[in-house]
Amino acid sequence: MTDKTYPKTERTKLHLLPKRGSYDKAVVHAIIDEALIAHVGFCAADGRPVVLPTAIARIGETLIVHGSVISRMMKTLAGGVPLCLTVTHVDGLVLAKSAFHHSMNYRSVTVFGEARVIEDPAAKEAALRALTDHIAPGRWEHLRPVTAKEVKATTALEIDLVEAVAKVRSGPPVDDAEDLDWPVFAGVVPLRLARDEPVPA
Amino acid sequence: MTDKTYPKTERTKLHLLPKRGSYDKAVVHAIIDEALIAHVGFCAADGRPVVLPTAIARIGETLIVHGSVISRMMKTLAGGVPLCLTVTHVDGLVLAKSAFHHSMNYRSVTVFGEARVIEDPAAKEAALRALTDHIAPGRWEHLRPVTAKEVKATTALEIDLVEAVAKVRSGPPVDDAEDLDWPVFAGVVPLRLARDEPVPA
Repeated sequence: MTDKTYPKTERTKLHLLPKRGSYDKAVVHAIIDEALIAHVGFCAADGRPVVLPTAIARIGETLIVHGSVISRMMKTLAGGVPLCLTVTHVDGLVLAKSAFHHSMNYRSVTVFGEARVIEDPAAKEAALRALTDHIAPGRWEHLRPVTAKEVKATTALEIDLVEAVAKVRSGPPVDDAEDLDWPVFAGVVPLRLARDEPVPA
Repeated sequence: MTDKTYPKTERTKLHLLPKRGSYDKAVVHAIIDEALIAHVGFCAADGRPVVLPTAIARIGETLIVHGSVISRMMKTLAGGVPLCLTVTHVDGLVLAKSAFHHSMNYRSVTVFGEARVIEDPAAKEAALRALTDHIAPGRWEHLRPVTAKEVKATTALEIDLVEAVAKVRSGPPVDDAEDLDWPVFAGVVPLRLARDEPVPA
């Protein structure tokens, strides 16, 4: 761990394909910043896991999530339970000569930690602004200003980035040498999230 | 619950926006079948949650996931621990006149259950075939056939679809009437996962 990397912990250490892992803060941040949503998981009161999608934004070394004050997930996370939050971009289908070597190109980040409620009014407004500007940069300042009632109806949570790991696979399939002449296409089908023309309301 | 719907349980009941929920098997299946990956969550031995992305396929009322026999996640899930698996498609950015009414259009499915190891050789091969054909329909029969060693090195798991719920938001932003003349664009930015031209290996 340095000021540019996250520590490699028992939970963030990759046992299977360590070369796919990165603890570089710049790599982790870039993957988070491109993500529209994360899947956040926690163990509910009954001890069973729950995984739900939620919008995210990042302010420095802090992740922001939000929701209605009456949301069950928000109430649970606000209690400071351990959580795990993962964002994933699927960048391509990796088609090999054999089923065994099929794969996907992807970039993911997994964060372990817990959430804190953002109580300070200025910090809470900054968090809500970050969420809005995350999906449409610079948009916040053009919007009808938030009201006290709206802010009160929203829970904003922050999660410190202290235990995080990126996983990245890229490039072509890795086939067995003896399969290279097998008569089927092998390569990558690139995937990307396309934004189409906005549809006015 | 009918033969065409999943039961509404305490965990799959939507408290906040029930109109977004669907227990219709056809709706749930369609969302799963379009998904390349799911985020699967479980509570680890230390009681803390873990959420990881994994490829999925569906055979009837069963979800299939797979991985290396030495993967920690596969070993944990193979033990039959409670799991939660969510797939999400983000279909659009919903830009409103106020930050409060911003949203995303999405389709998600959340499944609660547990996994079983597929031991039967024919069922295991069918599961691996389903995973391959899920990303490239009809591809399996053209590939170099799987070897016994490859099958042995892979854990295939099945998860019964018995407790599942779809959540769907679609359509334009829902703004407050008094904001409709606020001078900022409001509408939807459609998003879709685009497949570009295959790149041969």
